[in-house]
Amino acid sequence: MNELEEGTALRLDFGKLRAIGERGADVIPVVLQHVDSGEVLFVAYANEKALAETLATKRAVLWSTSRNELWRKGDTSGDVLDLVEVRVNCEQNSLLYRVRPRGGVCHTRNVEGHTRRRCYYRRLTGPDGGLAVEE
Amino acid sequence: MNELEEGTALRLDFGKLRAIGERGADVIPVVLQHVDSGEVLFVAYANEKALAETLATKRAVLWSTSRNELWRKGDTSGDVLDLVEVRVNCEQNSLLYRVRPRGGVCHTRNVEGHTRRRCYYRRLTGPDGGLAVEE
Repeated sequence: MNELEEGTALRLDFGKLRAIGERGADVIPVVLQHVDSGEVLFVAYANEKALAETLATKRAVLWSTSRNELWRKGDTSGDVLDLVEVRVNCEQNSLLYRVRPRGGVCHTRNVEGHTRRRCYYRRLTGPDGGLAVEE
Repeated sequence: MNELEEGTALRLDFGKLRAIGERGADVIPVVLQHVDSGEVLFVAYANEKALAETLATKRAVLWSTSRNELWRKGDTSGDVLDLVEVRVNCEQNSLLYRVRPRGGVCHTRNVEGHTRRRCYYRRLTGPDGGLAVEE
Protein backbone atom coordinates (compact mmCIF):
# COMPACT_ATOMS: atom_id res chain seq x y z
CA MET A 1 0.00 0.00 0.00
CA ASN A 2 1.15 3.53 -0.77
CA GLU A 3 1.05 5.11 2.71
CA LEU A 4 0.86 8.70 1.44
CA GLU A 5 -2.02 8.01 -0.92
CA GLU A 6 -3.95 5.41 1.03
CA GLY A 7 -2.81 5.58 4.64
CA THR A 8 -4.46 7.30 7.60
CA ALA A 9 -1.58 9.61 8.60
CA LEU A 10 -1.53 13.24 7.49
CA ARG A 11 1.70 13.98 5.59
CA LEU A 12 0.95 17.12 3.61
CA ASP A 13 3.34 18.07 0.82
CA PHE A 14 3.63 21.82 1.36
CA GLY A 15 6.41 22.08 -1.23
CA LYS A 16 4.14 21.44 -4.24
CA LEU A 17 3.54 25.03 -5.35
CA ARG A 18 7.11 26.10 -4.73
CA ALA A 19 8.23 23.26 -7.00
CA ILE A 20 5.82 24.42 -9.71
CA GLY A 21 7.08 27.99 -9.32
CA GLU A 22 10.72 26.95 -9.52
CA ARG A 23 10.02 25.13 -12.76
CA GLY A 24 8.58 28.39 -14.14
CA ALA A 25 5.34 26.85 -15.41
CA ASP A 26 2.62 29.36 -16.32
CA VAL A 27 -0.27 27.47 -14.76
CA ILE A 28 -3.22 28.22 -12.54
CA PRO A 29 -5.17 25.87 -10.27
CA VAL A 30 -8.27 24.18 -11.65
CA VAL A 31 -11.01 22.74 -9.44
CA LEU A 32 -12.76 19.76 -11.01
CA GLN A 33 -16.36 19.44 -9.87
CA HIS A 34 -19.00 16.84 -10.68
CA VAL A 35 -21.80 18.92 -12.20
CA ASP A 36 -24.61 16.63 -11.00
CA SER A 37 -23.56 15.64 -7.47
CA GLY A 38 -21.59 18.83 -6.77
CA GLU A 39 -18.70 16.76 -5.40
CA VAL A 40 -15.24 18.26 -5.64
CA LEU A 41 -13.21 15.63 -7.52
CA PHE A 42 -9.63 16.97 -7.45
CA VAL A 43 -7.44 20.01 -8.04
CA ALA A 44 -5.11 20.16 -11.02
CA TYR A 45 -3.36 22.82 -13.09
CA ALA A 46 -3.90 24.36 -16.53
CA ASN A 47 -2.02 26.64 -18.85
CA GLU A 48 -3.44 28.42 -21.90
CA LYS A 49 -2.95 25.36 -24.11
CA ALA A 50 -4.80 23.04 -21.73
CA LEU A 51 -7.70 25.47 -21.39
CA ALA A 52 -7.95 25.95 -25.17
CA GLU A 53 -8.03 22.19 -25.76
CA THR A 54 -10.59 21.71 -22.98
CA LEU A 55 -12.93 24.20 -24.66
CA ALA A 56 -12.30 22.79 -28.13
CA THR A 57 -12.71 19.08 -27.27
CA LYS A 58 -15.34 19.43 -24.50
CA ARG A 59 -13.40 17.22 -22.09
CA ALA A 60 -11.12 18.08 -19.17
CA VAL A 61 -7.53 18.69 -20.29
CA LEU A 62 -4.93 19.76 -17.71
CA TRP A 63 -1.21 20.47 -17.63
CA SER A 64 0.82 17.85 -15.81
CA THR A 65 3.29 19.80 -13.68
CA SER A 66 5.34 16.64 -12.97
CA ARG A 67 5.57 15.36 -16.56
CA ASN A 68 5.51 18.87 -18.06
CA GLU A 69 3.02 17.97 -20.77
CA LEU A 70 -0.68 18.12 -21.62
CA TRP A 71 -2.71 15.71 -19.54
CA ARG A 72 -5.81 14.60 -21.41
CA LYS A 73 -7.60 13.08 -18.42
CA GLY A 74 -8.75 9.58 -19.28
CA ASP A 75 -6.42 8.88 -22.22
CA THR A 76 -4.69 6.12 -20.26
CA SER A 77 -7.33 5.13 -17.70
CA GLY A 78 -10.45 5.62 -19.80
CA ASP A 79 -11.79 7.85 -17.01
CA VAL A 80 -12.62 10.78 -19.28
CA LEU A 81 -14.35 13.83 -17.76
CA ASP A 82 -16.85 15.37 -20.18
CA LEU A 83 -16.94 19.14 -19.90
CA VAL A 84 -20.17 20.96 -19.13
CA GLU A 85 -18.80 24.44 -18.41
CA VAL A 86 -15.75 26.41 -17.30
CA ARG A 87 -15.99 29.18 -14.69
CA VAL A 88 -13.45 31.77 -13.59
CA ASN A 89 -13.03 33.47 -10.20
CA CYS A 90 -13.18 37.23 -9.60
CA GLU A 91 -9.40 37.68 -9.70
CA GLN A 92 -9.03 35.49 -12.82
CA ASN A 93 -6.30 33.35 -11.28
CA SER A 94 -8.09 30.00 -10.98
CA LEU A 95 -10.64 27.97 -12.95
CA LEU A 96 -13.56 25.70 -12.18
CA TYR A 97 -14.22 22.86 -14.65
CA ARG A 98 -17.73 21.51 -14.13
CA VAL A 99 -17.67 18.00 -15.56
CA ARG A 100 -19.50 14.71 -15.89
CA PRO A 101 -17.27 11.66 -15.31
CA ARG A 102 -17.69 8.63 -17.59
CA GLY A 103 -16.27 6.31 -14.91
CA GLY A 104 -14.10 6.71 -11.83
CA VAL A 105 -11.92 9.75 -11.17
CA CYS A 106 -9.06 9.05 -8.77
CA HIS A 107 -6.23 6.61 -9.59
CA THR A 108 -6.56 4.99 -6.14
CA ARG A 109 -8.98 2.12 -5.75
CA ASN A 110 -11.62 1.34 -3.15
CA VAL A 111 -12.06 -1.99 -1.37
CA GLU A 112 -14.02 -3.32 -4.34
CA GLY A 113 -11.12 -2.57 -6.69
CA HIS A 114 -12.79 0.31 -8.55
CA THR A 115 -11.12 3.67 -9.10
CA ARG A 116 -12.59 6.08 -6.56
CA ARG A 117 -15.16 8.67 -7.61
CA ARG A 118 -13.09 11.54 -6.14
CA CYS A 119 -9.59 12.18 -4.74
CA TYR A 120 -10.89 13.77 -1.48
CA TYR A 121 -11.91 10.47 0.05
CA ARG A 122 -10.14 11.11 3.40
CA ARG A 123 -11.31 13.44 6.13
CA LEU A 124 -9.10 14.98 8.82
CA THR A 125 -10.29 13.65 12.15
CA GLY A 126 -8.87 16.57 14.15
CA PRO A 127 -5.77 18.57 15.01
CA ASP A 128 -3.87 15.33 15.77
CA GLY A 129 -3.33 14.61 12.08
CA GLY A 130 -5.36 11.43 11.67
CA LEU A 131 -7.36 10.62 8.54
CA ALA A 132 -10.64 8.75 8.19
CA VAL A 133 -11.30 6.96 4.90
CA GLU A 134 -14.77 7.33 3.37
CA GLU A 135 -15.60 5.61 0.11
CA MET B 1 -15.65 49.15 -12.30
CA ASN B 2 -12.69 46.81 -11.92
CA GLU B 3 -12.52 45.26 -15.41
CA LEU B 4 -10.53 42.20 -14.33
CA GLU B 5 -12.86 41.35 -11.46
CA GLU B 6 -16.19 42.40 -12.90
CA GLY B 7 -15.80 42.67 -16.66
CA THR B 8 -16.75 40.19 -19.37
CA ALA B 9 -13.30 39.75 -20.97
CA LEU B 10 -11.12 36.77 -20.09
CA ARG B 11 -7.73 37.97 -18.82
CA LEU B 12 -6.31 35.04 -16.92
CA ASP B 13 -3.34 35.65 -14.64
CA PHE B 14 -1.17 32.64 -15.42
CA GLY B 15 1.70 34.05 -13.37
CA LYS B 16 0.02 33.53 -9.99
CA LEU B 17 1.65 30.24 -8.98
CA ARG B 18 5.06 31.24 -10.26
CA ALA B 19 4.86 34.35 -8.08
CA ILE B 20 3.98 32.20 -5.05
CA GLY B 21 6.86 29.86 -5.85
CA GLU B 22 9.33 32.70 -6.24
CA ARG B 23 8.34 34.02 -2.83
CA GLY B 24 9.15 30.58 -1.39
CA ALA B 25 5.87 30.20 0.51
CA ASP B 26 5.14 26.68 1.74
CA VAL B 27 1.48 26.63 0.81
CA ILE B 28 -0.93 24.28 -0.89
CA PRO B 29 -4.22 25.09 -2.66
CA VAL B 30 -7.43 24.92 -0.66
CA VAL B 31 -10.85 24.55 -2.27
CA LEU B 32 -13.62 26.20 -0.26
CA GLN B 33 -16.97 24.49 -0.74
CA HIS B 34 -20.40 25.28 0.67
CA VAL B 35 -21.32 22.11 2.54
CA ASP B 36 -25.07 22.46 1.97
CA SER B 37 -25.36 23.68 -1.64
CA GLY B 38 -22.14 22.02 -2.84
CA GLU B 39 -21.12 25.24 -4.58
CA VAL B 40 -17.40 25.85 -5.03
CA LEU B 41 -16.83 29.25 -3.41
CA PHE B 42 -13.18 30.04 -4.17
CA VAL B 43 -9.63 28.70 -4.15
CA ALA B 44 -7.11 29.98 -1.63
CA TYR B 45 -3.85 28.77 -0.04
CA ALA B 46 -2.89 27.38 3.35
CA ASN B 47 0.31 26.59 5.19
CA GLU B 48 0.64 24.48 8.34
CA LYS B 49 -0.22 27.43 10.59
CA ALA B 50 -3.40 28.27 8.70
CA LEU B 51 -4.55 24.66 8.76
CA ALA B 52 -3.83 24.31 12.47
CA GLU B 53 -5.81 27.46 13.27
CA THR B 54 -8.67 26.33 11.01
CA LEU B 55 -8.97 23.07 12.95
CA ALA B 56 -8.60 24.78 16.33
CA THR B 57 -11.07 27.64 15.75
CA LYS B 58 -13.53 25.79 13.48
CA ARG B 59 -13.56 28.56 10.88
CA ALA B 60 -11.73 28.92 7.56
CA VAL B 61 -8.25 30.38 8.00
CA LEU B 62 -5.99 30.75 4.94
CA TRP B 63 -2.56 32.14 4.16
CA SER B 64 -2.60 35.35 2.16
CA THR B 65 0.11 34.94 -0.48
CA SER B 66 -0.03 38.65 -1.36
CA ARG B 67 0.10 40.04 2.21
CA ASN B 68 2.20 37.12 3.50
CA GLU B 69 0.14 36.69 6.65
CA LEU B 70 -2.67 34.61 8.12
CA TRP B 71 -6.02 35.44 6.56
CA ARG B 72 -8.82 34.81 9.00
CA LYS B 73 -11.65 34.97 6.47
CA GLY B 74 -14.33 37.36 7.70
CA ASP B 75 -12.26 39.33 10.22
CA THR B 76 -12.66 42.48 8.13
CA SER B 77 -15.84 41.76 6.13
CA GLY B 78 -17.76 39.79 8.72
CA ASP B 79 -18.18 37.05 6.10
CA VAL B 80 -16.87 34.25 8.32
CA LEU B 81 -16.93 30.68 6.97
CA ASP B 82 -17.73 28.17 9.71
CA LEU B 83 -15.83 24.92 9.25
CA VAL B 84 -17.66 21.62 8.96
CA GLU B 85 -14.79 19.39 7.82
CA VAL B 86 -11.40 19.32 6.10
CA ARG B 87 -10.57 16.73 3.45
CA VAL B 88 -7.28 15.85 1.76
CA ASN B 89 -6.61 14.46 -1.72
CA CYS B 90 -4.82 11.19 -2.49
CA GLU B 91 -1.45 12.86 -3.09
CA GLN B 92 -1.77 15.05 0.03
CA ASN B 93 -0.95 18.24 -1.84
CA SER B 94 -4.28 20.08 -1.66
CA LEU B 95 -7.12 20.53 0.84
CA LEU B 96 -10.89 20.83 0.72
CA TYR B 97 -12.52 22.99 3.40
CA ARG B 98 -16.21 22.22 3.58
CA VAL B 99 -17.81 25.28 5.17
CA ARG B 100 -21.04 27.07 5.99
CA PRO B 101 -20.92 30.81 5.18
CA ARG B 102 -22.50 33.25 7.65
CA GLY B 103 -23.05 35.83 4.90
CA GLY B 104 -21.58 36.50 1.47
CA VAL B 105 -18.28 35.09 0.27
CA CYS B 106 -16.72 37.10 -2.56
CA HIS B 107 -15.54 40.69 -2.13
CA THR B 108 -17.30 41.71 -5.37
CA ARG B 109 -20.92 42.82 -5.15
CA ASN B 110 -23.96 41.92 -7.20
CA VAL B 111 -26.45 44.41 -8.70
CA GLU B 112 -28.24 44.62 -5.37
CA GLY B 113 -25.03 45.67 -3.61
CA HIS B 114 -24.53 42.43 -1.64
CA THR B 115 -21.25 40.53 -1.58
CA ARG B 116 -21.62 37.59 -3.94
CA ARG B 117 -22.16 34.07 -2.61
CA ARG B 118 -19.16 32.69 -4.57
CA CYS B 119 -16.19 33.96 -6.59
CA TYR B 120 -16.97 31.76 -9.64
CA TYR B 121 -19.86 33.91 -10.80
CA ARG B 122 -18.64 34.13 -14.42
CA ARG B 123 -18.84 31.41 -17.05
CA LEU B 124 -16.66 31.17 -20.16
CA THR B 125 -18.95 31.47 -23.15
CA GLY B 126 -16.55 29.67 -25.51
CA PRO B 127 -13.07 29.62 -27.00
CA ASP B 128 -13.38 33.33 -27.92
CA GLY B 129 -12.67 34.41 -24.34
CA GLY B 130 -15.97 36.00 -23.43
CA LEU B 131 -17.52 35.78 -19.95
CA ALA B 132 -21.18 35.62 -18.94
CA VAL B 133 -22.10 36.93 -15.50
CA GLU B 134 -24.48 34.86 -13.40
CA GLU B 135 -25.51 36.06 -9.95
